Amino acid sequence: MRAALVGATGAVGGAILRILSEREPFLDELIPVASPRSAGRTLPFRDGEIEVRALAPEVFDGVDLALFDVPDDVALEWAPVAVERGCTVVDNSAAWRMHPEVPLVVPEINAGAADDRPKGIIASPNCTTLAMVVPVNAVHAEARLKRLVLASYQAASGSGRPGIDELWEQTQIAAKEPDAVQEGLARTVLERGETFAHPIAMNVIPQCGSMKDDGYTSEELKLCHETRKIMDLPDLPVTATCVRVPVVVGHGVAVHAEFEREISPERARELLEAAPGVEVRDDPAAGVYPTPLEGAGKDPCYVGRIRQDLFDPRALAMFCVADNLRKGAALNTVQVAELLA
Amino acid sequence: MRAALVGATGAVGGAILRILSEREPFLDELIPVASPRSAGRTLPFRDGEIEVRALAPEVFDGVDLALFDVPDDVALEWAPVAVERGCTVVDNSAAWRMHPEVPLVVPEINAGAADDRPKGIIASPNCTTLAMVVPVNAVHAEARLKRLVLASYQAASGSGRPGIDELWEQTQIAAKEPDAVQEGLARTVLERGETFAHPIAMNVIPQCGSMKDDGYTSEELKLCHETRKIMDLPDLPVTATCVRVPVVVGHGVAVHAEFEREISPERARELLEAAPGVEVRDDPAAGVYPTPLEGAGKDPCYVGRIRQDLFDPRALAMFCVADNLRKGAALNTVQVAELLA
Repeated sequence: MRAALVGATGAVGGAILRILSEREPFLDELIPVASPRSAGRTLPFRDGEIEVRALAPEVFDGVDLALFDVPDDVALEWAPVAVERGCTVVDNSAAWRMHPEVPLVVPEINAGAADDRPKGIIASPNCTTLAMVVPVNAVHAEARLKRLVLASYQAASGSGRPGIDELWEQTQIAAKEPDAVQEGLARTVLERGETFAHPIAMNVIPQCGSMKDDGYTSEELKLCHETRKIMDLPDLPVTATCVRVPVVVGHGVAVHAEFEREISPERARELLEAAPGVEVRDDPAAGVYPTPLEGAGKDPCYVGRIRQDLFDPRALAMFCVADNLRKGAALNTVQVAELLA
Repeated sequence: MRAALVGATGAVGGAILRILSEREPFLDELIPVASPRSAGRTLPFRDGEIEVRALAPEVFDGVDLALFDVPDDVALEWAPVAVERGCTVVDNSAAWRMHPEVPLVVPEINAGAADDRPKGIIASPNCTTLAMVVPVNAVHAEARLKRLVLASYQAASGSGRPGIDELWEQTQIAAKEPDAVQEGLARTVLERGETFAHPIAMNVIPQCGSMKDDGYTSEELKLCHETRKIMDLPDLPVTATCVRVPVVVGHGVAVHAEFEREISPERARELLEAAPGVEVRDDPAAGVYPTPLEGAGKDPCYVGRIRQDLFDPRALAMFCVADNLRKGAALNTVQVAELLA
């Protein structure tokens, strides 16, 4: 099997290269593809290096599988080009996720959906959806999900390398200003950058993505619509508040889940411990619960702080964390590709 | 009126001194009180300086009003001593908040409750409760609150100066490690400190306070019980997830509020704009919403991202921010004291 990786030089592209290097090989060849200004660069892959090619229709000739991690408009234009040249596309952008003829696949939940792909495209979900949908689905299998209220703690790398750079640069500035920062007046020394609408160092920003209808952001609506599609619960009510936090890698989600049936935290923990792709970290008195710092660079969806709503025995609260570049993007994309091998 | 400020050298004590210096004077004299090791230090107050006295029963002689911001055990022991010497106590610790004979007062909501204080003590609420209860109450006045699901974004200064110091020291360490931090591997260079159970720089920690029954933290239970008492809704279901974030000052709360009656975001905005102590910042397409960086050092409870639940016209989502050292602690304490002037 020959594969192309479109967007190979981005933050997620880099994570895909690392993950493919770590896992059991299933590709005979991997061609990294990026914009023309990156053509000719070499990237580390397994024991060697591979040379980046500029995005053009010809790069897909003789290629079986194309992994895309590019902006929505690029994926919208180029995924059909790759399909036309004979590829199956696994796309990590939002461009195709909600298309009725494109399956949205999380292998731990709906691997079978990948078989029905009339457009030749399979989509991989948003990174924040992935941080919580795998654990939530594991409890749903027994208790039947009725409603989700979510609040996210999203890392700067959710906005790619520019997000990481912006947090890093502002952290450098803040670190040189002890008086202002320690008095809580970091705003007097920090300015907003290009990527986030406010300074992200020493701050949280209750906006991820762009503003859409009814006062919700694109990210908040993705959490709703993608969760419904992945879990095949087309009418599930999902309300989310998505917030950017000064973390480099690792998205957290505070989950409040109402189920049809009563479920104890003990039983939920059993279900989660048995669920593929999930790791339970839940001994809070000993400081054991998921944090993004611990989850970064790791594969599982971590879950902890599992407790019953004090006033509703059919509702659970929990805190989920996943590496937004790995399970939240690159790892899920690779896992979907492995379904096709 | 003569007053004592017990805990004058702490983060909140400092904020009380600043706020008293800014506002219309209502005290003839202020005596700063702290532990014996701080005795003799001078602190800035109005145009001059005042000298710290060591905590002892005699400091309350001839004093009318004692403001306390000290650990719970100190408040439990010393508030009755101050009362016995003739003071009315306004206490900002958790020690007395839930005592049935101690009113828990937010002047914008239940100023009248301060009149009935059989123990001579009035309590001021937890900083996270204060960040959201003033705006939530303003909407409740018309729509009648039925349920709250909350997720917090709490600043390091919620743990006082040690919290600020720990975030600052870890930020200094992280700022010298570009490779690890930018790769999302800050955990390889950061160690936990004394105050928080995990590194707080470049991280979020889903634990504020100590672990209590049923998997909830002390902070999460305070949000429930204090909100019920302040709003006089003893059966209100409140479920909270409290998370520490790498911010110096300013607590954020993602609020999901269900009401008895349908309420539009437009009407909620009108009610909030008319509410004392609340400032609406809600033009998200222009980047206008509350952030802790902007709210630090300011008095109002900020609210924005006001929107209807997409699936329940009787529920609203919103994002609230208040300076946890000011409205969340020092300002509310001073406002309660002003009720007594």
